Amino acid sequence: MKRLFKTIGKRIAECRRKLNYSQEYLAEKTGLHRNYIGYIERGEKRATIENIRNVAYAVGLSLEQLFKDF
Amino acid sequence: MKRLFKTIGKRIAECRRKLNYSQEYLAEKTGLHRNYIGYIERGEKRATIENIRNVAYAVGLSLEQLFKDF
Repeated sequence: MKRLFKTIGKRIAECRRKLNYSQEYLAEKTGLHRNYIGYIERGEKRATIENIRNVAYAVGLSLEQLFKDF
Repeated sequence: MKRLFKTIGKRIAECRRKLNYSQEYLAEKTGLHRNYIGYIERGEKRATIENIRNVAYAVGLSLEQLFKDF
């Protein structure tokens, strides 16, 4: 389970950086706290499907892409 | 969001039936309550990624398949 959260966190961070979004901007865009975005990206937070989906969509990732190979 | 949970619930139920598993058996296999499986299948329960993954794997679905087109 840890590996899953680490991987989806990395995928989100990668897409966020490609878009040149800061964690602050992504937090604003999703209505989540900036620290929460950091936790998700480091795989430290077992976020809900709802929050994970909102963050993924905000960086242009589908859930299918996000969970690829899991 | 409702549509997402409805769809993944249907996908899980479909695979469970194909395997001829009862909800009781799936509950036993995953350590979840039988009612909880019913809620997930009807899309009434916004389950955690952890529980959704355990249920999906127990019916032979990957997360990538489960979230297909989302």
